[in-house]
Amino acid sequence: MSRKVRVGPYLIGGSDFIVIAGPCSVESMTQFQSTSFSVKNSGGHILRGGLYKMRTDPRSFQGLGQEAMAIVKTVKQQTGLPFVTEVSDPKQIDELQEIADIFQVGTRSMYNSSLLKELGRQRKPVILKRAFSARIDEWLLAADYIRHGGNNDVILCERGIRTFETATRNTLDLSAVPYIKQHSDLPIVVDPSHGTGIRSLIEPMAKAAAAAGADGLLLEVHPQPEKALSDGPQALTPQDFENLMRSVEKVLLAVDRKLHPAPKEYNEVPLKMVEIQPGV
Amino acid sequence: MSRKVRVGPYLIGGSDFIVIAGPCSVESMTQFQSTSFSVKNSGGHILRGGLYKMRTDPRSFQGLGQEAMAIVKTVKQQTGLPFVTEVSDPKQIDELQEIADIFQVGTRSMYNSSLLKELGRQRKPVILKRAFSARIDEWLLAADYIRHGGNNDVILCERGIRTFETATRNTLDLSAVPYIKQHSDLPIVVDPSHGTGIRSLIEPMAKAAAAAGADGLLLEVHPQPEKALSDGPQALTPQDFENLMRSVEKVLLAVDRKLHPAPKEYNEVPLKMVEIQPGV
Amino acid sequence: MSRKVRVGPYLIGGSDFIVIAGPCSVESMTQFQSTSFSVKNSGGHILRGGLYKMRTDPRSFQGLGQEAMAIVKTVKQQTGLPFVTEVSDPKQIDELQEIADIFQVGTRSMYNSSLLKELGRQRKPVILKRAFSARIDEWLLAADYIRHGGNNDVILCERGIRTFETATRNTLDLSAVPYIKQHSDLPIVVDPSHGTGIRSLIEPMAKAAAAAGADGLLLEVHPQPEKALSDGPQALTPQDFENLMRSVEKVLLAVDRKLHPAPKEYNEVPLKMVEIQPGV
Amino acid sequence: MSRKVRVGPYLIGGSDFIVIAGPCSVESMTQFQSTSFSVKNSGGHILRGGLYKMRTDPRSFQGLGQEAMAIVKTVKQQTGLPFVTEVSDPKQIDELQEIADIFQVGTRSMYNSSLLKELGRQRKPVILKRAFSARIDEWLLAADYIRHGGNNDVILCERGIRTFETATRNTLDLSAVPYIKQHSDLPIVVDPSHGTGIRSLIEPMAKAAAAAGADGLLLEVHPQPEKALSDGPQALTPQDFENLMRSVEKVLLAVDRKLHPAPKEYNEVPLKMVEIQPGV
Repeated sequence: MSRKVRVGPYLIGGSDFIVIAGPCSVESMTQFQSTSFSVKNSGGHILRGGLYKMRTDPRSFQGLGQEAMAIVKTVKQQTGLPFVTEVSDPKQIDELQEIADIFQVGTRSMYNSSLLKELGRQRKPVILKRAFSARIDEWLLAADYIRHGGNNDVILCERGIRTFETATRNTLDLSAVPYIKQHSDLPIVVDPSHGTGIRSLIEPMAKAAAAAGADGLLLEVHPQPEKALSDGPQALTPQDFENLMRSVEKVLLAVDRKLHPAPKEYNEVPLKMVEIQPGV
Repeated sequence: MSRKVRVGPYLIGGSDFIVIAGPCSVESMTQFQSTSFSVKNSGGHILRGGLYKMRTDPRSFQGLGQEAMAIVKTVKQQTGLPFVTEVSDPKQIDELQEIADIFQVGTRSMYNSSLLKELGRQRKPVILKRAFSARIDEWLLAADYIRHGGNNDVILCERGIRTFETATRNTLDLSAVPYIKQHSDLPIVVDPSHGTGIRSLIEPMAKAAAAAGADGLLLEVHPQPEKALSDGPQALTPQDFENLMRSVEKVLLAVDRKLHPAPKEYNEVPLKMVEIQPGV
Repeated sequence: MSRKVRVGPYLIGGSDFIVIAGPCSVESMTQFQSTSFSVKNSGGHILRGGLYKMRTDPRSFQGLGQEAMAIVKTVKQQTGLPFVTEVSDPKQIDELQEIADIFQVGTRSMYNSSLLKELGRQRKPVILKRAFSARIDEWLLAADYIRHGGNNDVILCERGIRTFETATRNTLDLSAVPYIKQHSDLPIVVDPSHGTGIRSLIEPMAKAAAAAGADGLLLEVHPQPEKALSDGPQALTPQDFENLMRSVEKVLLAVDRKLHPAPKEYNEVPLKMVEIQPGV
Repeated sequence: MSRKVRVGPYLIGGSDFIVIAGPCSVESMTQFQSTSFSVKNSGGHILRGGLYKMRTDPRSFQGLGQEAMAIVKTVKQQTGLPFVTEVSDPKQIDELQEIADIFQVGTRSMYNSSLLKELGRQRKPVILKRAFSARIDEWLLAADYIRHGGNNDVILCERGIRTFETATRNTLDLSAVPYIKQHSDLPIVVDPSHGTGIRSLIEPMAKAAAAAGADGLLLEVHPQPEKALSDGPQALTPQDFENLMRSVEKVLLAVDRKLHPAPKEYNEVPLKMVEIQPGV
């Protein structure tokens, strides 16, 4: 028996395929608004964007943090779309509660049992990314940490594992999709952005994920990837995203699934693409 | 510019998708004949089957060797289908020349430069499986060993790499498919049988391979997998194979490809499934 | 220039080799006392023991937690040895402050930047274990997170990486020892218990670590490994530990290092080995 | 019970530690002669040098082949030392028979069962390098292929496995040494040159190998590493080699082993270091 996780108007894990998209980091009102409307216009269902980034290097951009709260609130209202963001420290939960419709556990936090236990006490869905070093059994045990606390609304996310291959940033393990479907009741989405790290591989792998039976996608989109403050090389442009949505849509029909209907028309907000100024 | 490799009536690497299928090892006339007609009946294009197996353990079944020559010749004639078989030693080339329409280099031989050089002197297509330990650049350099000798008819085959994951036999690296398409002129097929090692994962990964842009599949089929002398757990039954073909067919249309038309009706040979006796 | 980290009477990273040993988890007064005196009697320098365990499975023993505080305080007093324990959540720091002379960051927490930043604000040495999935450059960047906050007393600990090899629990990467010595100013110790996961491999790998230039060892010792609540198969008995110390001592002299002198005689406490009752 | 393999005056696998050293490739009389006398002067026991190289890239230097036969014969006579060289194709066996006292199976050939079977028919010791992708059980099964043919004189060689770490060329798995000692009767030597790929890590890892219980070392030495036609960055200079021998000697005494006595004085041949001209 498979579980379905409700997020706003969507049921993740059902017959409808859900696309979660947005920038790696929320960088500014202009950037997040522009990205979000692009996502919505192409039929994306849920917005994503990082406020607190887990970076390997302490000198890398760590996210706008609290500064981005107002931006996200405004854009959520304008688009009417739910929002998912990463939480890497139990202390961030309260603060992010207001804007997050789904909490995301990043690949570097999958083994953080304090965080998992705290999320088990929440009554909000959790996207649990696979640690890039985790065997599937460990990933399911991490999900058990959350479920143990009474929160069964866990959505798994395959995002690539670390192997000897260096041509791609990670090796996207798509066989995890049918494996999970056969060994777990949880829905599973795929993140081909981190899974490959290379823009030109994202669309083919998104189609492959849909064909393999995934319940949705998690994607990085940026209006000007070359100016992104993090993960630019793996961000799709709005046009790339539109193309991907149309081609994934066709694959879904071939495997007896369908893209969830596009969200309704958004409030017309005059939008013009402006030069992005980080932190504004 | 992408190359197309001609094998009998097929052009591998063109718009038509090619399916190569058959048992891991040719075990007997009954087994190979039965498998081959099942493959043909479901629209498979090329037969496969091992005569000389490379086994990790010297005590494992090493293949029928020369004994299988007559079996293969008969079944090729009956079905009218081309045949691919693995060659692991330059000395086998002459002997296998008569029955092989394509030579296959197995995962354990990808670094065997003597063998690659010898195949470079042949005028027959070569399926070059990726070593389960090979980075993509090394795989392409192995192809260069063959091409260096003047034989450009190389078909790459992604068959999974060795990682820390133990739930599956290997980790099928489907991102290699679009990566190869963008960095090489060679066609690429996918082997989800070895790539997963688990029967129930093969069909979803076959569909994913088609969606990712592969030019074909390499599959293990056995009339009674539980009695197979090698690789039983990853062999499809004829019914599994039929199901897979029908579902892959639909995915291909969604990505603007199509399954190569099924080979013409075969000579009606009275076939009944009999108890398999190894070596008979 | 290499840094030396002071811990009580020891300078880690200098000419003297330091051995940190104790049980995986503090299970009871009897168990911890018995182990600690064995460690001291054989010349061990610093005690270790987990109060809060990070376990992959939420159903596994998670450590005694606060209950163990009194046990550790008593044993520290009786032996006069410093104590190191793992902290996996910033919230544990205050509580463990009283008993910990060194904080340990476990392999599953190496990417936890909230924790690293908080430890950067402390004025206590930190043992930073390598994530079993971390490249050396990422490990050094994790150390930078701690140093960024002003705490330069970081001791690196190589404890094995995850590879395709399944004969051992991890693959102990001893080449990291000279590599770190040549690319960083931080001391490095080696944990052959987790690094191999197999009791009989620990002594040879401890000697190898000493020969490769490590500044010390981190070892699991248990009076009755077969009754340990966690990690029994990789725990040394007190006799194993004594043997290891004597053989490591000889290797150190061969590489112009020496074992730090054994701590002075401890207060004679009547000790008898009793049946261990978990939680007592 | 452990086996000892006799090679000329040596018993590999006994109490005496054996050092095999020489250039990656035999490049010229001057280069091989100079290297060989350096090796002998520092107490090395067996010479090594490639005639047929297995290279990943068909455009890389493939070895002098037959041209090097006379060079090796001369230098063997002058030094009186035995010689080991790689054989990657059964066809090379006859030709190399005359100069090889040990045949070496390289890391890329460990799965080549045709080659292993042929070596099983020889009456000469074989050094069987671990494939960089092989689990220990597969490595022992490869040894079984040779032993199956009646040749039990197999010497295993750990030379590093392929992992996600990119700081070193491979990850030298020293835990394989005690593991093999406990699970096999075969001697095992270690190759820290390929195992690390970095000159400055070779001596520490050689000492670690000796401490871990290895029966010997396999090392690359070159009179002018920066001019080597292959593997220069991991070649020791003669002075490096001398230093390594002296420090390994001390570690061996600490683990109750000893370096096999240095070979007797060689015939005084006037040697002067000259500019190396490849192929001369």
